[in-house]
Amino acid sequence: MRPIVTLLTDFGTADGYVAEMKGVLLTHAPDATLVDVSHEVPAHDVESARLAVARYWRRFPRGTVHLAVVDPGVGSARAALAVESDGRFLVGPDNGVLSPALLAAGAQVVALPLPPRAAPTFHGRDLFAPAAARLATGTPLDALGDPIDDPVVRRTPEARRLADGGIEGSVIAIDRFGNAITNLVTLGGGAIEVEGRALPLQRVYADVAPGSPLALVGSNGLVEIAVRDGNAAARLGLVRGARVVLRPAPRA
Amino acid sequence: MRPIVTLLTDFGTADGYVAEMKGVLLTHAPDATLVDVSHEVPAHDVESARLAVARYWRRFPRGTVHLAVVDPGVGSARAALAVESDGRFLVGPDNGVLSPALLAAGAQVVALPLPPRAAPTFHGRDLFAPAAARLATGTPLDALGDPIDDPVVRRTPEARRLADGGIEGSVIAIDRFGNAITNLVTLGGGAIEVEGRALPLQRVYADVAPGSPLALVGSNGLVEIAVRDGNAAARLGLVRGARVVLRPAPRA
Amino acid sequence: MRPIVTLLTDFGTADGYVAEMKGVLLTHAPDATLVDVSHEVPAHDVESARLAVARYWRRFPRGTVHLAVVDPGVGSARAALAVESDGRFLVGPDNGVLSPALLAAGAQVVALPLPPRAAPTFHGRDLFAPAAARLATGTPLDALGDPIDDPVVRRTPEARRLADGGIEGSVIAIDRFGNAITNLVTLGGGAIEVEGRALPLQRVYADVAPGSPLALVGSNGLVEIAVRDGNAAARLGLVRGARVVLRPAPRA
Repeated sequence: MRPIVTLLTDFGTADGYVAEMKGVLLTHAPDATLVDVSHEVPAHDVESARLAVARYWRRFPRGTVHLAVVDPGVGSARAALAVESDGRFLVGPDNGVLSPALLAAGAQVVALPLPPRAAPTFHGRDLFAPAAARLATGTPLDALGDPIDDPVVRRTPEARRLADGGIEGSVIAIDRFGNAITNLVTLGGGAIEVEGRALPLQRVYADVAPGSPLALVGSNGLVEIAVRDGNAAARLGLVRGARVVLRPAPRA
Repeated sequence: MRPIVTLLTDFGTADGYVAEMKGVLLTHAPDATLVDVSHEVPAHDVESARLAVARYWRRFPRGTVHLAVVDPGVGSARAALAVESDGRFLVGPDNGVLSPALLAAGAQVVALPLPPRAAPTFHGRDLFAPAAARLATGTPLDALGDPIDDPVVRRTPEARRLADGGIEGSVIAIDRFGNAITNLVTLGGGAIEVEGRALPLQRVYADVAPGSPLALVGSNGLVEIAVRDGNAAARLGLVRGARVVLRPAPRA
Repeated sequence: MRPIVTLLTDFGTADGYVAEMKGVLLTHAPDATLVDVSHEVPAHDVESARLAVARYWRRFPRGTVHLAVVDPGVGSARAALAVESDGRFLVGPDNGVLSPALLAAGAQVVALPLPPRAAPTFHGRDLFAPAAARLATGTPLDALGDPIDDPVVRRTPEARRLADGGIEGSVIAIDRFGNAITNLVTLGGGAIEVEGRALPLQRVYADVAPGSPLALVGSNGLVEIAVRDGNAAARLGLVRGARVVLRPAPRA
């Protein structure tokens, strides 16, 4: 079984930084299968990276090593982490990007020491990639560093119940299609109030006419605002943090 | 021999949707070699995706599984397809994106049933990726679904002969370099009329001075309008659908 | 040991050109591990590609084949090269993109003959990918073509000493973060003059306040101008070629 190492960065690819990391990975773990997640995370956007990690980290087989380097604090005193959680490994800076795995039951986490000759501005190449390669080749987590008690954890803001029975939440991400993903969850129906509109919850995009806005439960279980065959963020003027309210359907 | 699975989507990579698909593929087909074709197809642009598929599907070895998920109709009544054609397999929505393989002699096609718990907005992850993994691990096509008689087929519009002897066609794609690819084919010389210019057919870009427009036969056999070291679409104001006329060279 | 083939192009991915190359590579070298470096090099920007190659070519294990196709002169009389240097192989056009490997001691280089049926506009698919596949499957370099004496070599412009003791250099690249990479090297401290500012050399971004500009030695040993948590090129109006002067620290 060839070990899988996934890569998520905000480096873009054109400058060759990601290639340097891949070269290091394949030098130290020649059998590894490298899987690009993305190198197009907006520069320094730890929150976007965290939400992406939440989506994919558990979709890969046990034993996978996830490298996630969105690291505006590189060279500062922030720690460097390796995590073992639900049978997967994750490596990245201690800034919250690995939170989804840290929050899972039984997660273990160690702080990675800085190799003596690491470039202070490129821990992706000199610290995180070598650590990922070691995990991919079977080195146990506790051989990589000492346990750390209080890693940085970021959480999606929680929705809150309003006095009038509504649930107030916010847009937590805008995806490539312009869908606005919220922190609202619902098992029933109802409607979403956003920017002065009330959008009944639908099941699929095709439940409304092309060009019409709608709300629906997205593929990760969160309520999304979309426009069929269109871009909801652009059309409705939605940005990260925009307020949304769920009005649950009356019970029968 | 490790099975190859290629991926073409319009998802971008930053949101993690493609990573979810890759995780599913490697969970169900751990030996597969994943090959990114592109995740930068313009959102919902089935026609661009179809033209890309036409370019590459036969370039890969027999046995390759091509996953092509540009799927604005996800969740609607559109069917989901798996195709076997010229020894390759293709999986994707029934919207024309797989047409190049469907049109080849001997193509077989089945409709994929929707798994009971599939998210209605993400068939890439819950329907197409699992089907691709099954094909990659040797499941025969007819075990995946029942044959379907009338899949959606899109064709490049055909050029037509004019009364004056010219051949009228159109720009079918603009590539990253700004080259305008047409539906015209020619074995001989002649000139291309476009936007009020007549551009003699050349063999290579270097046949004209830097910055000059030209016409030539591109690498897939179709006439292209280009500007040497420049961007023809921007320079000449060309868009998809623009009219072009081939004026064949007089016979000797 | 599976052979590694890396790919660097300016093709973008959406049009399917890169996929055609990958199909050719996997047809002729089915065991190869393909590694995407980037397909987002700015169109025709040989200099950017050369700087990226300089970063990564030696980071990969010996035996790796690096394919680098940024080739505005495709179809002209420019030669096509295969290089063996420090145990790695490189394939690409003779326009300077492979210079970092050509300049290493002991480099050997051959000119690749054009296959008879190669499309004159797509040597990436019909000339370079087949040559890379042959190297990946063990064909020795000298079986691919005849030695060539005077390949095109590009060098980073050298910094020069000024009469007043300063070292004058220039910005040679702007990376995705807006960091301006110069051709200056320093082992000591000092300051960088750029656009009317004097920026003391720091060790890491975190040595200055968020939003402040700084100079530091980057991960490839060159002096960079950066803005902590920001974009130095946009903030300071820096472009490729901008003049910078290193003022070395006085010796103790």
